[in-house]
Amino acid sequence: MDHKQKTKEMIAEVDHALLRYVDHGKHDKLIRAMKHYPEAGGKRMRPIMAILTAEAVGGRGKAALPFGCSLEMVHNFTLVHDDVIDKDPVRRGRPAVHIAFDEPTAIIAGDALFALAYEVLADTDVDGEALRRLLRSVSDTVFLVAEGQQMDVDNEDRTDVSRDEYLDMVEKKTAVLFACAAEGGAIIGGGTEMQITSMKEYARLMGIGFQIWDDVLGIKGDAKRTGKPVGSDIRNGKRTLIVLDAMDKLEKDPRKHVLTDALGNEKASDEAVQAAIRLLEEIGSIDFARKFALDYARRAKDLLSCLPDCEEREMLRELVDYAVGRDL
Amino acid sequence: MDHKQKTKEMIAEVDHALLRYVDHGKHDKLIRAMKHYPEAGGKRMRPIMAILTAEAVGGRGKAALPFGCSLEMVHNFTLVHDDVIDKDPVRRGRPAVHIAFDEPTAIIAGDALFALAYEVLADTDVDGEALRRLLRSVSDTVFLVAEGQQMDVDNEDRTDVSRDEYLDMVEKKTAVLFACAAEGGAIIGGGTEMQITSMKEYARLMGIGFQIWDDVLGIKGDAKRTGKPVGSDIRNGKRTLIVLDAMDKLEKDPRKHVLTDALGNEKASDEAVQAAIRLLEEIGSIDFARKFALDYARRAKDLLSCLPDCEEREMLRELVDYAVGRDL
Repeated sequence: MDHKQKTKEMIAEVDHALLRYVDHGKHDKLIRAMKHYPEAGGKRMRPIMAILTAEAVGGRGKAALPFGCSLEMVHNFTLVHDDVIDKDPVRRGRPAVHIAFDEPTAIIAGDALFALAYEVLADTDVDGEALRRLLRSVSDTVFLVAEGQQMDVDNEDRTDVSRDEYLDMVEKKTAVLFACAAEGGAIIGGGTEMQITSMKEYARLMGIGFQIWDDVLGIKGDAKRTGKPVGSDIRNGKRTLIVLDAMDKLEKDPRKHVLTDALGNEKASDEAVQAAIRLLEEIGSIDFARKFALDYARRAKDLLSCLPDCEEREMLRELVDYAVGRDL
Repeated sequence: MDHKQKTKEMIAEVDHALLRYVDHGKHDKLIRAMKHYPEAGGKRMRPIMAILTAEAVGGRGKAALPFGCSLEMVHNFTLVHDDVIDKDPVRRGRPAVHIAFDEPTAIIAGDALFALAYEVLADTDVDGEALRRLLRSVSDTVFLVAEGQQMDVDNEDRTDVSRDEYLDMVEKKTAVLFACAAEGGAIIGGGTEMQITSMKEYARLMGIGFQIWDDVLGIKGDAKRTGKPVGSDIRNGKRTLIVLDAMDKLEKDPRKHVLTDALGNEKASDEAVQAAIRLLEEIGSIDFARKFALDYARRAKDLLSCLPDCEEREMLRELVDYAVGRDL
């Protein structure tokens, strides 16, 4: 079976299990609110990563399915709360949970998804001490995601965010959950300690690359494929790695205003936004971020040498190429 | 040592452990937001119940301390989110988290406390399979609490809430977390299956009694001791068991307007509120709720016969008398 087909079947399996898990409890409205994002689709990268890793270290992929679904629920819970916090009205082409329902319901549905994630985790077919390890990993991870989200909220009003702070935030908001997926998959699959550590690091590096690539797409991406209007990150004033790099490079440059005029200016004309993007291109900031992400991707792929030569290893490699390289 | 002194020392121990646990992570503001409620005090009834139960079934109370703190964190996380949802500006005499900080920080701090609760749970000194059982119990419980909170939100605009619906909500919002505390304490202490089941039911009944008693205090309580102005539940229009009973009794009674004029009317005069309270007293609705709570308390105490005769059993009995009987 080719990898594309196998991935498709894995996604279908995850979708099926996930939606069954989320259909939980006695409160109809709460169930609908919990299902709102999971049923709108998604790439299911975290469960896929957990399943592939479990198989690659010699275990059964099926054994990692509840754990993978648990992380997907965590991911969706953070999206629900993020959208309330950021007042984002749309997600995956549908009204956000707090719009389709209301803010109280969105806060509660997020909490319920989070609780449910642990109920599903408890079903993992591993011995009790391995479960303790998974529990620690998931909880540490969600705590870091919360820290990352708090950094994001705090950084919104700051213009002096450093590159290190930005990368720290990206690691927490995005990379740690991928790291947890691969680490957990390796634990469930019965991998060696070396494999568990390497796979965690593989996924962490991929996660950082994934987010930086997202920054590139937010400026250069094809609107039809990314679903966001071109340059929306500029109008929203997002302090991405690209913008941080440009601010450094333009510090004493008379062209700086071309960027700052459009950045965070919701009323900036299309021409002004295009001019800002051209400037980012000219000074090499977009290319800087692109190379930065590709470097993380390369380092991630190098770590796959901890795995035996197998189909799943190849698919984990392709997963990186998809995460860092997609839609451009 | 007398029980009052022993309880005091247990609370001090819980406070110490709890505040150390909550001082977690690298983000100062997030730590302060997470600590905001725990450091404002509290009765610590859930940890105390877990510790006493572990001891009463023959185990070590210390072994239940992380678990008890974990539930206290869960309790505090739900308070943080509840206050955001209900837009309550004050808690334990201090500004609520979303006022002292802001709404995004309150949502994130609640999530972080919840994640941290599981990190602490993972430290419980029990074998892996007992940990799995605790994990299931805590997760099921938090899910039910979320359902209860959602019912509360939905009921706000309804005038046709039934008594059964109200009791279902009380069970979920309040009783299940107590039940989890006593069940978990019995598991950690190595109790028999019969003791684990009985102690869970003991705490569930106590929790319902506790909340109904709270309704009585909200109408009849001494403002100085409860911290709420007399009759605030009337002005807020809270559909408590007392009000539900009164609405039934007054259905065709010409005096009904005395209650409905004041209920949910924030501008009702003190005289109007006092008249409503007198009416509730005359038709026996306050006494009905009082007896209802005391009946639950009696049934809870009966279940303590599953325990050997010991000091902790006596203290668990006193805990019920405190929960249902306090401040009046």
